Amino acid sequence: MDRNRSDRRGFLKQTAALAGVAAGAGWAVRSQSAHAQHVHGEPPRRGARYRVDHMTHYTPLQDYAGIITPAPLHFMQQHSSEFPEIDPQQHRLTIHGMVDRPLSFSMADLKQLPSVSRIHFLECHGNSSPAIHGSDDPNLGLPVQFIHGMTSCSEWSGVSLSVLLNEAGVHKGASWLVSEGGDAGKFTHTLPLAKAMEDVIVAYGQNGEPLRVEQGYPIRLVVPGWEAPFSVKYLRHIKVVDQPYMAWNESMNHSVSRPDLGGKARWYHFQFGPKSVITRPSAGLNMPGRGYVQITGLAWSGAGTVTKVEVSTDGGRSWKEAKRHAPVLPRAHTRFTFDWAWDGQEAVIQSRCTDDAGEVQPSLAELTKNWGMDAADWKKTPRPRAIHFNAIQPWKIARDGSISDVLFA
Amino acid sequence: MDRNRSDRRGFLKQTAALAGVAAGAGWAVRSQSAHAQHVHGEPPRRGARYRVDHMTHYTPLQDYAGIITPAPLHFMQQHSSEFPEIDPQQHRLTIHGMVDRPLSFSMADLKQLPSVSRIHFLECHGNSSPAIHGSDDPNLGLPVQFIHGMTSCSEWSGVSLSVLLNEAGVHKGASWLVSEGGDAGKFTHTLPLAKAMEDVIVAYGQNGEPLRVEQGYPIRLVVPGWEAPFSVKYLRHIKVVDQPYMAWNESMNHSVSRPDLGGKARWYHFQFGPKSVITRPSAGLNMPGRGYVQITGLAWSGAGTVTKVEVSTDGGRSWKEAKRHAPVLPRAHTRFTFDWAWDGQEAVIQSRCTDDAGEVQPSLAELTKNWGMDAADWKKTPRPRAIHFNAIQPWKIARDGSISDVLFA
Repeated sequence: MDRNRSDRRGFLKQTAALAGVAAGAGWAVRSQSAHAQHVHGEPPRRGARYRVDHMTHYTPLQDYAGIITPAPLHFMQQHSSEFPEIDPQQHRLTIHGMVDRPLSFSMADLKQLPSVSRIHFLECHGNSSPAIHGSDDPNLGLPVQFIHGMTSCSEWSGVSLSVLLNEAGVHKGASWLVSEGGDAGKFTHTLPLAKAMEDVIVAYGQNGEPLRVEQGYPIRLVVPGWEAPFSVKYLRHIKVVDQPYMAWNESMNHSVSRPDLGGKARWYHFQFGPKSVITRPSAGLNMPGRGYVQITGLAWSGAGTVTKVEVSTDGGRSWKEAKRHAPVLPRAHTRFTFDWAWDGQEAVIQSRCTDDAGEVQPSLAELTKNWGMDAADWKKTPRPRAIHFNAIQPWKIARDGSISDVLFA
Repeated sequence: MDRNRSDRRGFLKQTAALAGVAAGAGWAVRSQSAHAQHVHGEPPRRGARYRVDHMTHYTPLQDYAGIITPAPLHFMQQHSSEFPEIDPQQHRLTIHGMVDRPLSFSMADLKQLPSVSRIHFLECHGNSSPAIHGSDDPNLGLPVQFIHGMTSCSEWSGVSLSVLLNEAGVHKGASWLVSEGGDAGKFTHTLPLAKAMEDVIVAYGQNGEPLRVEQGYPIRLVVPGWEAPFSVKYLRHIKVVDQPYMAWNESMNHSVSRPDLGGKARWYHFQFGPKSVITRPSAGLNMPGRGYVQITGLAWSGAGTVTKVEVSTDGGRSWKEAKRHAPVLPRAHTRFTFDWAWDGQEAVIQSRCTDDAGEVQPSLAELTKNWGMDAADWKKTPRPRAIHFNAIQPWKIARDGSISDVLFA
């Protein structure tokens, strides 16, 4: 995987790299105190009938290498006010509705069925929300963890949902599933049957361990490449139906009014587009000094595999291909790196992802145009106007080495 | 990755599979009490000058799916009587000897250099030792964790050793490295320069986390595909030399007297051959009942990639290809599965790995012949006569569902 080693060596030699290294300069993170109360870019919402506290953890993207997110650092968006305490000896998954044989599986049943293990990312549909960019508060949203850290990547182990559905015998004419969790709020979400039969996992393991309680212990759905609310935690019931029901969360929290639809709302949001972010150097960190720096980051796409990552260090005027590190897997984070020599001058760096569907990650201007929006629409309150926000993320490096977010500058 | 799904469905339907599943039968593990004192198949050795306690952890291969071993469950063979307490702010790695520029790197220096992340297995050279098989004690060595659990697989992150060596400027004529750890025993091991330049990592991260102390915090070598003692923990010094020094551990603990060499010892053991083991069902577990069972296990090779895994359920008379699950990576564990229907009769199941060097995992008889040994040689005391032991592992299933190790039956 290091075929460019000799090139890189030449590169290192040409820069002030090792001089800087020998000085022992390191990354410094600005104060994170502003984040103690930072909750997902919007205030807690409390409705008349449901009390919904968003308990949120972000993955510290700036602090790790590779693609496997340690299980305790996986992002979390908890929809009930407390974690459910589920006895795995008692827990059952039922499949009912439009099926020949309604089935009820114990955990022991599920673990005895054919197992699959695959590496996939999950991402919150509100990750990288426009609301978080371009704030007057220079610490808000920093470091990158609190802008883009609602995505993580794990090796998920469990049973293919298709195996369970095939055993139940799905009726002709069935087209959707309604899945419900065993948490206090009975989090419920729908899923098209075709996706369920394609690659969805009923997961009991994450990175070789049992699921952690914040990830849905003892079982959750993992719906690869689609926004995380599909991946229902504490999974308890799956009902097979013949139309797209609108679950409470989908209609209340996950619908988005869109100007390009004449004020109508978009109700269903499925697959993520191609996306990438430079995790180091990134806003909130400081450059270690002039000379060699390895630019590194993550790229992913809901459509499949990342086929190319490009990096620009001149504000988007020119782009060069970054190195993608193996393994490059479908619907998984892909680690990329790019060798660079910083000359100490102001610079804007950014990355751009292309996937095997041929889609290219858009700039903010392209995304604004593609979605039929005005630039001002992005920042309208009270709710971010966009989810699945995958605009290219520029980071501005100042001459003093400080790095800031200039996406909405 | 589930192209055989429809086949499998047919298969499931033809067996008593789901009947068995619905009954909720599960795997049961026999008593593990016999292992409380079980230490690596040999008693602690205490020399006149060194007190060496082997503190050993085995990976519970029978209990997890996928290929990523959770960091706290990675196997461990500790060579000093306690873990070193190393201050990462003070720790330095020096490279000296036959180099143009002796270098000293702080942890901050290392983290600023080009990073790599790759998934690789590590394995103790004494893993699966013949001494552990065929004991009179029916619990000794069980479950599979205590026979084959001295191998684990992680995503390792760090700097390519070649980058550091290139910066130091290795002299013409240099051919070996001597690496030393910062533990109390100053664990020392040699490494051919060619391997160092190929794919060795100076690792500071495992599965996205910093290394744990038992894995060499703050840095260790990871020498992919070669026996684990090469992967020196708490790495502190690398000396570049021009001949194969014999470090204390290599000459005292890691040399093996071999009949095929007329009584001479073999001093250096590098790359592992192709190997695999069925982790479920396996000795020490009990079958959940007749009918469908997914056979699952791990395959790996020090030479590169696993190109084929075959499974036999009839004592080796016939073999069928198992499914290899993505990702299939060089010098990494590969997960395989095989759908089977157990008819309730006595059976012997086993797996066989082929790698991309074209090598095939040998049976015990083939290995005995290949190494010029007599069958009786394997069990000679006080030290197992073989390391890098990669014979095919047969598990015998009795009619009552109990499973035993019959490798030396």
